[in-house]
Amino acid sequence: MSKQPLAGIFTPNITPLDSHGRLDEDNLRQYVDWLIQKGVHGLYPNGSTGEFVRFTPEERKRVIEVVADQTRGRVPILAGAAEANVEETIRACDTYGQLGCRAVAIVAPFYYRLAPDGVYAYFKEIADRVSVDVTLYNIPLFASPIDVATVKRLAMECPRVVGIKDSSGDIPHMMRMIAEVRPIRQDFFFMTGWDASLVPMLMVGADGGTNATSGVVPELTKAIYDACRAQDWQRAMQLQYQLLPLFDAMLGTSEFPEGFRRGAKIRGWNLGESRTPLTPQQSTAADKAQAKIRELLSGFEFMKSPARAPIATDDTVISQIVMEVLQQLRNQP
Amino acid sequence: MSKQPLAGIFTPNITPLDSHGRLDEDNLRQYVDWLIQKGVHGLYPNGSTGEFVRFTPEERKRVIEVVADQTRGRVPILAGAAEANVEETIRACDTYGQLGCRAVAIVAPFYYRLAPDGVYAYFKEIADRVSVDVTLYNIPLFASPIDVATVKRLAMECPRVVGIKDSSGDIPHMMRMIAEVRPIRQDFFFMTGWDASLVPMLMVGADGGTNATSGVVPELTKAIYDACRAQDWQRAMQLQYQLLPLFDAMLGTSEFPEGFRRGAKIRGWNLGESRTPLTPQQSTAADKAQAKIRELLSGFEFMKSPARAPIATDDTVISQIVMEVLQQLRNQP
Amino acid sequence: MSKQPLAGIFTPNITPLDSHGRLDEDNLRQYVDWLIQKGVHGLYPNGSTGEFVRFTPEERKRVIEVVADQTRGRVPILAGAAEANVEETIRACDTYGQLGCRAVAIVAPFYYRLAPDGVYAYFKEIADRVSVDVTLYNIPLFASPIDVATVKRLAMECPRVVGIKDSSGDIPHMMRMIAEVRPIRQDFFFMTGWDASLVPMLMVGADGGTNATSGVVPELTKAIYDACRAQDWQRAMQLQYQLLPLFDAMLGTSEFPEGFRRGAKIRGWNLGESRTPLTPQQSTAADKAQAKIRELLSGFEFMKSPARAPIATDDTVISQIVMEVLQQLRNQP
Amino acid sequence: MSKQPLAGIFTPNITPLDSHGRLDEDNLRQYVDWLIQKGVHGLYPNGSTGEFVRFTPEERKRVIEVVADQTRGRVPILAGAAEANVEETIRACDTYGQLGCRAVAIVAPFYYRLAPDGVYAYFKEIADRVSVDVTLYNIPLFASPIDVATVKRLAMECPRVVGIKDSSGDIPHMMRMIAEVRPIRQDFFFMTGWDASLVPMLMVGADGGTNATSGVVPELTKAIYDACRAQDWQRAMQLQYQLLPLFDAMLGTSEFPEGFRRGAKIRGWNLGESRTPLTPQQSTAADKAQAKIRELLSGFEFMKSPARAPIATDDTVISQIVMEVLQQLRNQP
Repeated sequence: MSKQPLAGIFTPNITPLDSHGRLDEDNLRQYVDWLIQKGVHGLYPNGSTGEFVRFTPEERKRVIEVVADQTRGRVPILAGAAEANVEETIRACDTYGQLGCRAVAIVAPFYYRLAPDGVYAYFKEIADRVSVDVTLYNIPLFASPIDVATVKRLAMECPRVVGIKDSSGDIPHMMRMIAEVRPIRQDFFFMTGWDASLVPMLMVGADGGTNATSGVVPELTKAIYDACRAQDWQRAMQLQYQLLPLFDAMLGTSEFPEGFRRGAKIRGWNLGESRTPLTPQQSTAADKAQAKIRELLSGFEFMKSPARAPIATDDTVISQIVMEVLQQLRNQP
Repeated sequence: MSKQPLAGIFTPNITPLDSHGRLDEDNLRQYVDWLIQKGVHGLYPNGSTGEFVRFTPEERKRVIEVVADQTRGRVPILAGAAEANVEETIRACDTYGQLGCRAVAIVAPFYYRLAPDGVYAYFKEIADRVSVDVTLYNIPLFASPIDVATVKRLAMECPRVVGIKDSSGDIPHMMRMIAEVRPIRQDFFFMTGWDASLVPMLMVGADGGTNATSGVVPELTKAIYDACRAQDWQRAMQLQYQLLPLFDAMLGTSEFPEGFRRGAKIRGWNLGESRTPLTPQQSTAADKAQAKIRELLSGFEFMKSPARAPIATDDTVISQIVMEVLQQLRNQP
Repeated sequence: MSKQPLAGIFTPNITPLDSHGRLDEDNLRQYVDWLIQKGVHGLYPNGSTGEFVRFTPEERKRVIEVVADQTRGRVPILAGAAEANVEETIRACDTYGQLGCRAVAIVAPFYYRLAPDGVYAYFKEIADRVSVDVTLYNIPLFASPIDVATVKRLAMECPRVVGIKDSSGDIPHMMRMIAEVRPIRQDFFFMTGWDASLVPMLMVGADGGTNATSGVVPELTKAIYDACRAQDWQRAMQLQYQLLPLFDAMLGTSEFPEGFRRGAKIRGWNLGESRTPLTPQQSTAADKAQAKIRELLSGFEFMKSPARAPIATDDTVISQIVMEVLQQLRNQP
Repeated sequence: MSKQPLAGIFTPNITPLDSHGRLDEDNLRQYVDWLIQKGVHGLYPNGSTGEFVRFTPEERKRVIEVVADQTRGRVPILAGAAEANVEETIRACDTYGQLGCRAVAIVAPFYYRLAPDGVYAYFKEIADRVSVDVTLYNIPLFASPIDVATVKRLAMECPRVVGIKDSSGDIPHMMRMIAEVRPIRQDFFFMTGWDASLVPMLMVGADGGTNATSGVVPELTKAIYDACRAQDWQRAMQLQYQLLPLFDAMLGTSEFPEGFRRGAKIRGWNLGESRTPLTPQQSTAADKAQAKIRELLSGFEFMKSPARAPIATDDTVISQIVMEVLQQLRNQP
């Protein structure tokens, strides 16, 4: 296992289920192939989008086995490895490392909200004992927050901690982390998990993103990443303005991540229903949302000619606005 | 299994661990005996105080097996039964029912925050399929909130849903639930999980409490409950004023439920260390907190003569204040 | 003017406006008379219910002049005195004291959220310089919170600070304040501003309440207070269960305090429209809410025979529930 | 007065006070001159940084008179005009317009938290009646939030509403507003008030910022704005990384806006003490913070040779990091 960089767009992939609610391994393998073929830079199974908390420990392990076996080193795998406690988590980390995962991602303890010291102690204990690289996973909406001082402390003390995936969406927070950690750990990776801020996050120095949207429109997130790498911020911004309403629509569909399952369906992937039941009213609302998602998707060039890779070149209303904005900006005092 | 009422004080018991961090079954059995002997009205294993999320599904099951076997029907058991998803939860519910538990308690989905509709759909699906009585568990600090309308809807539609354990600590919320549900379901139980509000909750009509404090000072919580049953609100209030600083001290000790483990230790129960690691600073702070807890405990009569059952009769500063307050109240305009 | 106790029910009275949106002094005078006649123990002009922030400094002063002149010492006046800054506030305090107000109430600084130290410094500066008694006003929903340690510090250092009005609705918070402050300042008054918790607050030792509901149904809040003084907690609780839906309905009507204006209207007081504009949709919704409030009010005995003072004796569904609850409580294990 | 664009960096200027706590008009005039000379694009008196809520209506008016008189049209003035209620606010708006202000900024109602409908009704009423251009002011930390739908509704219905100043710091929120409003109102201005996100905000299309930091280091904020106009995002980002710790240090100093007063002091402006009192501990902490601010400022080139305009060209650690980040970005997969 070479030390591939944790950079670019990693797909926190949806976990496919069959009609009995069981892991659909065939579908998962094909979906993995499609994502890689579409150019995602890495895979991130057992993330929040993968509904890791709704699976048993055995199922979570099986997901990683299938993804690792199917990927065969084509792209690095960042494997969600949080289990019930430190011991179980360490066991999962080591197993996933042996299966060839590039690194594991461990969400801060959830349910209970730990103090910064408790969050530190948890990651420190794990990082000192595992035999695989670890990325911290900060998602303050769902789990104990990992503050800047804690990230710095872990980066200084734990060689195994090689990065953070931050889903706060807070740009200054990302900048504060980068400003504190880059000078002491140049090998530390910063990934954003908040699709709505992808371009600004890359602009301030994040190495990439683990973006649920990439599981539905990998072409779009790749185009964004490529534009940022090329420092074509105007194009990046246009694409970000296209991504935002799509992300909002999928995020707002009944219960997360139902909207992303619906989006994938429109792309031809029947990944089954989420394990959280919906009311009939929620299902009806999700159907309506699906129509909206379809409409948004239909505006993209890559939806028209699926064989060809890239991204919308049609002059949408938004792209025109963006150009006007930039024009205005140039003409201002 | 007779239909014992879900009323009185249920102990959400700490899960004893040995020095290797494994379930300490002998200690658990003895602790169960002690609690029952001290007069708790029921046991509530696999609750938040029991750190259910830090155990594996197998461990959670073993906890219930041991508690049920040791209890032998002496008091009703309310078994925490939330698992990773609906199917696993249903399986756990049925198993716990067969083991003789009076009912199961299911916390609302956590990590993801579900909308009221999603919370309803989750409980409805479970309640329609299990063969054991279910209590809802509302703890908005940690999990998706269960609002009044959802409680009412489930109470109306699901005979298996027989009560709610509410840890919000919000008195008007409890009153709203009681006002909505009692007229349509007189068999519905209301339990409070917020020790700091125990007496006011009982006064507005709650049937009892699942109070972590009862795992440390069951004499005190029993005395409170008895005073409330006897409608001796003056005495109940005195005791509540004694419980509050003790609860605050235990709750504020490093990470929950470390303070309650420390409290139990002072009572002679070495239940081991919590599974969440602490920093050395946190351990030192917990030692200091333990001294404070010990000091608070030393004020109770039952700590002086452990053989005798009841509660402080010494005139503490607080009890004097309370009497003065009530005196003043009588003399006012 | 003698040192009347800040105890019992104080009405944070609505500020009457005429059809041009100006202070309606005649109406205010009559409303003051009605409230006193109905038995409120004090008046609290320029509170949140009085929309103090929506008036100019001159208008606020005029409100106090009118209320003080009309009251003529029949009941104590607690005058809201927060102005733009420390100097202006001190000026208002002294003026209101000279007008005969028993004390002033000063809300913690709002807009900016101050740290506990800043809150302390603000009150300390004022309390050291005014010539009238001061009550702190804690309403964390709208203004900087006043924590327990700050209340204790001010109670210890400032003889002029004679009480706190707390609108947090948090029972344990009230208990913590009482436990900390009563032993060092027996003359310190604790008032609750959260009608939904009035009875539990009085039970834990609060001296009274400044309750918006008392501006609409002074008979009900007086009956509650009297029941609590008589330690008839069963009756107090019944009445609290009647107050709660009424309070909820008035609080939930479009923008605060529109619902209380509508409630007063049903009692025969046309106090005009609030100064905050409503959309037509909000007005329609408020009309509907008014019908609901009227329906709730029609259940009270004192609505039927306005001449007679006391409270509902009809067996409502709620009172029956309450009695059953208490019955059950007595029969439990 | 021509219709100057509300674009570029507007300084929400500190209100200078003399040693008696009175408005220091001479200092204000000189400070205005300095800011204009340093290249700020506009002035924004009576904003949050100007502590508008801590002044009387008369003082607020005097501030505008002085600023307008001193500015003499050199730069546009955006005048904070929120008063106690709709009528007073309208009066202030018209007065400020007559004094030559380009537009007024009106913060959403605070203290009470209004529903979106109430926020809409408030602005609608004002916008329909004033004779000056209005910008909405969204600062959800302190006042009722103005949501995207409300901004759109007001933009559509009210020609007088010509922009929004948004201090949420939320990038996707800004993008959502721009995406909704630009297509229907191309003359609508978007200003950000959250300095920590200035560059990303300009990148997604904001027209400028009302940034407290510009009252201390106008050279830095101007350089940022110029770099963004020139689409030199690499330089803009370097400067943003310099601004962030300075902003954090000033924001974190005791009570807002004390840190900005301290910053201005280091630049040679003794603008007096804020009207909110501090404890001795807070003053000591502010002194320490001032030393830190001084240290941060000393790293800027413009601090060394005050005669020369531009910005740091020295290779600070941060600028090196930034260049490395961008280098890495180019070399990535």
